[in-house]
Order: sequence, then C-alpha cells, then structure tokens
Amino acid sequence: MSGREKPLSVKRPLLLLDKDKCIRNIRFMAGKARKHNLLLRPHFKTHQSLITGEWFRDEGTDRITVSSMVMAHYFGTNGWDDICVAFPFNIHETDEAAALAAKIRLHLTVCSAETLRIIERSSIGEIGIYIKTDTGYNRTGVDWDDTGSIEEMLEIINRSSKLDFTGFMVHNGHTYHVRGHDEVERIHRESADRLCVLRKKFAERYGPFLISSGDTPSCSMSSGFEGIDEIRPGNYVFYDLTQLHIGACKPDDIAVALAVPVVAKHPGRNEIVVYGGAVHLSKESLLLEDGTRVWGQVAETDLSSWSDPVPGTWVTKVSQEHGVIRCSESFFKRTGPGDIIAILPVHSCLTADLMRGYTTTGGIRIDHLSGYQK
Amino acid sequence: MSGREKPLSVKRPLLLLDKDKCIRNIRFMAGKARKHNLLLRPHFKTHQSLITGEWFRDEGTDRITVSSMVMAHYFGTNGWDDICVAFPFNIHETDEAAALAAKIRLHLTVCSAETLRIIERSSIGEIGIYIKTDTGYNRTGVDWDDTGSIEEMLEIINRSSKLDFTGFMVHNGHTYHVRGHDEVERIHRESADRLCVLRKKFAERYGPFLISSGDTPSCSMSSGFEGIDEIRPGNYVFYDLTQLHIGACKPDDIAVALAVPVVAKHPGRNEIVVYGGAVHLSKESLLLEDGTRVWGQVAETDLSSWSDPVPGTWVTKVSQEHGVIRCSESFFKRTGPGDIIAILPVHSCLTADLMRGYTTTGGIRIDHLSGYQK
Repeated sequence: MSGREKPLSVKRPLLLLDKDKCIRNIRFMAGKARKHNLLLRPHFKTHQSLITGEWFRDEGTDRITVSSMVMAHYFGTNGWDDICVAFPFNIHETDEAAALAAKIRLHLTVCSAETLRIIERSSIGEIGIYIKTDTGYNRTGVDWDDTGSIEEMLEIINRSSKLDFTGFMVHNGHTYHVRGHDEVERIHRESADRLCVLRKKFAERYGPFLISSGDTPSCSMSSGFEGIDEIRPGNYVFYDLTQLHIGACKPDDIAVALAVPVVAKHPGRNEIVVYGGAVHLSKESLLLEDGTRVWGQVAETDLSSWSDPVPGTWVTKVSQEHGVIRCSESFFKRTGPGDIIAILPVHSCLTADLMRGYTTTGGIRIDHLSGYQK
Repeated sequence: MSGREKPLSVKRPLLLLDKDKCIRNIRFMAGKARKHNLLLRPHFKTHQSLITGEWFRDEGTDRITVSSMVMAHYFGTNGWDDICVAFPFNIHETDEAAALAAKIRLHLTVCSAETLRIIERSSIGEIGIYIKTDTGYNRTGVDWDDTGSIEEMLEIINRSSKLDFTGFMVHNGHTYHVRGHDEVERIHRESADRLCVLRKKFAERYGPFLISSGDTPSCSMSSGFEGIDEIRPGNYVFYDLTQLHIGACKPDDIAVALAVPVVAKHPGRNEIVVYGGAVHLSKESLLLEDGTRVWGQVAETDLSSWSDPVPGTWVTKVSQEHGVIRCSESFFKRTGPGDIIAILPVHSCLTADLMRGYTTTGGIRIDHLSGYQK
C-alpha cells in the first residue's frame, strides 16, 4: 500500500500529492472547528485513502463521513469506528450495513419514512440515523419545511429500539455555483436559519440531536456557525480550481496536481498536447469569467514540488487520453515534447478517483480505495 | 476474467452489456468496410476488453487501433499482432514501445520531425509510422497543408532502415459536434479531399502508403469513402447517446447501459435519485435541443435486457455518487426506492473506463483493461 519509489521520471500521468499542503489544510479545518466549538466529521470521499486518513487522526479526527457503503467498509475495517454514510441509504446494501454496524458505530442517512421502515425491519442492528434535509440545494433530502414528513420519520425512529436519531444533515452543494464570501455566506446562513427552525420544533420531543452541515466552501470561508453542531467538509483536504474560483482557497493550498508528459506542440495556435485527458482529470470543467471553459490550469514541476499556476495557460480541451493546453506565449516557447508539466485539477475528488492513488512529492506511494474496488 | 454469475440483483452500479447488439454493431461495420473495400482497423479504446476483442476477430478483424502504450501492451500480449497506437508518441515510453515492437507489428503515430528523430535514434526496432495529420479538427497532428513539415518527416522515414511509412492518419473529432448526415458528410468529404492532395503529392516518391481516417459518426453515416484506404472507428461497438443525437445510431443499437438502484424520490419536482454518479457515468454531458443538459437517459430493465429510452426521463445532474433523474409523470409514478433502472450513457468509452468491466445481459463477466491497470 505504501513504499518509497522516488519518481525520477514520469512516464504516464501521475497524481502528485504535496503532503505539507495537505496537512496544512487538515490542520486549518481542525483549528477552525475547535475555534467555533464544532464537531468535525470530515468527508473522506475526496481522498478515499487510509494513509491520508491517518493524517486526520493525527489532528484529532475520530469520526468520519463517507459517501458509499464500499467506502464505509474500507475505512470501517481499517481502524475507523464512527462512520456516517452520507448518501441516501440503498436498501440493496442492507447486509453490508448490518455487518458493519455490528462492528462499529455506523450512521445511515435517510430521506423517507419508507426507507426507515425497511431499515427497522431489516437485520441491521443498533444504528445511528441522520435525516437528510434539503434547505435549498434540491439534490436530495426531505424538504426542511415538510415538517409532516420529518415528524413521521422522527416517530418511527422514536418508537424503534434500534434506531438512534443522530441528527439533521444538510449538504449545501449550491455554494459550488456561486463566487465569493458574501454569496457563500448567504447560502450558509439561510440554511442554518432553516435548520434552527427544525431544532426549535423538534428538540424537546426528539432531542438531543445534532445539526450537521458544512460543505468546503462555507466551512472554509464562513466565520458564523451559530446553530450548527457538526461540520462535514471533505474537499478541503486537497482543494482544487473550483474551490479557488469560489474563493475558498488560495492557489498554494491546492495539494494535488496531475503530472503529465507533453507529446505535441502546435505553433500557430500556441497549443501543446499532453498525455492526460478525461480518463485522468475527468470531464469536470470550469467556466472562467471571460467565458473560456477549462479542464485544468498548468503549473511547472520538477516532481518534488510545483509552481504557482502559470498565468494564461489552461487545459482547454480533453478527450479520452488527450489534453489540449492553450499556453501563454512565454510558456509555449519554453515547453516541448518530453517535458513534464503539472495540471491543477478542476475537481480533485474526481481526478483522485480516476487516478486511484497518489505519489507524494517526497516519492511515497499513497493508497486510494479505487485502486482496490469501487 | 470471465465467469458465470447471473446477476439476480444489483446492489451497486453495474455496467450491463448486450452481447447481441454489440455483435450486430461489430458486423455492421465489418460489412460496411468490406462493401467499400476498406481496411478496418477498429479502435479498441472504447471497449478495452479481450473478450469483446474476440468478437471482432470472429468477424475478420486482425489489426487494431489503441490509444495508449498500456493498451497496446494489453492486447499485444494477448493475441493481437498488428497494433497502431493512435496517440502522439510519448518519448517516455520508448522502452515499452521497443519491447512490444520486438514481438508484434507495432505502428506509432507521430506529429513532428523531432519525435521521429528520437524514435530513429532509440532502441526501438523496425516499426510502422503513421503521420498524424490535421485536416480541420485542430486537436493535434501536422496541418495537412504544411507540406514542408510533412516532407521533412517523410524524408527522415525514407532515410531510415527501421522506420516504415504506414500512412497518413486523421481523426475528425469535429463530427462529434454536428448533427445529421449532411454535416457529418461535409466534414468527412472535406477531410478526404485534403488527404487526396497529400496522396497525389507524395505517392510517387514515398508510396505505397495508406490514407487512414474514419471516426464513428462518419463511418456509420457516410456512404462515400473515395480516397480512403483504412478506417478506425471505435465507439460503434457500443454507441451511446452522443452518437444517437448525431444520428449515427438508433436507440436499439446502444449496447451498454448502467444498471443503478433508486435511492430517493422527490414528488414536488418529479425527480428520483439513484446510486450512480460522476464516478460511474463520467461527467460527459449532452445538450438537448431544448437547452437541457443531460448525463444519461433512462430505460427500464429486468437485467436480462433493457427497454427503449423512456421519453422525457433524463439524468439532469450528477455528483460523485448521486445521479438525479427528472422523470416523466408516468415513469415517476411507477418508480421508487429499491427499483433498478438502466441509464444509457452519454459517452460509452468513459463510462466503460470508469466501470472497469461489464456484465452481459446473459450474466457473463467481461474484462476491461482498467480493471487491471491504466
């Protein structure tokens, strides 16, 4: 799973991880949670790595979030004993949930009374339940103002000897579609206010329970967490261009970069082509303010570190293995076939999932669940 | 690598493959190549599968195209002895190319004199060379009218005792950005005409050589292949929604579908949520004529086959593990948590790469290279 193998050269796309930046990011959020007296249950779906997980443990993390039962199994059988699966419970994975719940403190996420009843009747033993609540993102969860459905769910939990109400969970993914502190703060605040309504309404009868919120943009940028007990950010472990453009991080906080070889050069249009495409970076793109759609930004690298992003030098097209990079005049001049360059990913979670592992800038191989199964 | 394991139920996303449709697609293209007297060198980057490769061999295929040296190694060490790596040669993979060229007939793709000189001086032995030519797609390749650069390359090949000029290769990826026969035909024809200019100019001195063209849209839709000797389509083995919307296939030709469990249901907005997201389907999207962006279309399935696409029922959002499906009224009514539905992918190559293997509707497990390495 790990081993020293200093990469003196890169033959094919390789996902570099800067451990110092990564640990700085982990510490930043641990410190912020302590400062605001918040429980921190970081989402491990970004890194999906046991070794990286230990860096969290070193900073005091003892409870985590994952987004699939497979991921829960990976961490639950490797030393983590308090895991929340923050994905609407898939009733086809009842056996897996039962097996894991027998060993660790497992929390399932539920959006309907129907699913709760299935869990109640199943072979799953004592289990924590988060009610997934929708305060405006509109992906999934029971609407925060549908208090009838929420009460029906709380009653099922209350009557059950094995279901334990952990709390209300919300994920405000719409913070990813705005830019800057004020817009992120507005979404974060509106959501927290709505959750406070639920707390007031249900605390006496069904409490104590947690209000669990906190995506990476709001956890990174906000300074107001009134009404929130627990945060579950994940992406901040690596950050990426999306977070940079939201304003949630600085260029120097981005802790992963895809090292790729240049394979062709096209004067006329100042473009280079690299071996590194959709099967490495993913097809996640970002729309720049000038209307250009990009799939990554270039940095220079000697593999032991990488530079600040090269201005005006972006991945402007990806196909399966090809990445096309539109370069600044000066970068184009100094770059040619055989050179290794780094690409800062638009969405580090997806790039990590595709690359299935990392190599630190110190030359250590780091695991990713998808190197084993999915 | 294979084995009977009839999937009576699906716990997690599973990529179904309809072998009959797949073989029908393979036969269709083999027949078309024969009819037009074309060499067929199908691109195996879509399926990346040894078992699927044998279905091509059964229809007469003995030469193939791949898009990476790793893929060339997978097929080259498993019975395929005439392989073209249709990707600008990456000089960091010289050792791998040399090892493979010592065993099989390997063709490398080159876009510059500089790379050719490196190959000429390298440990690589006798090798076929395709000159990657750009007739309008503008991804990579030497411009078709830059006859000075082309001649420089041909001279290097000509003087070399180990480089053998296989031909001019073109990939017209811009057929993917148009719709309907006429627009595809216009691109295909313009490109063929430009390649004819090269043939006329260089045939006497550097011939015989092949003119190799042919993406899936033009190979599926065109009936004119004058001036072309060899075609290299790949996606047609499975087709997908992108090809359907270009007009290159019918719904019933799509040979793969992602089976996924429904995990949540949201009345109010007629949406269901499935366990199946960006790490299964990919983030490749398609813009419908009405301006909706989609990541897949839904079909019904009992796992032994799937239905025609359900009208008005599309994947309208994907995040890491979540797929959000906007449903027709009637589909929404009859679908609930626990149901298994099928999703026709926007881009089958990327979905297959992410899923790393297939299960046929007959219950047989089929390999994909990415189940092993990348």
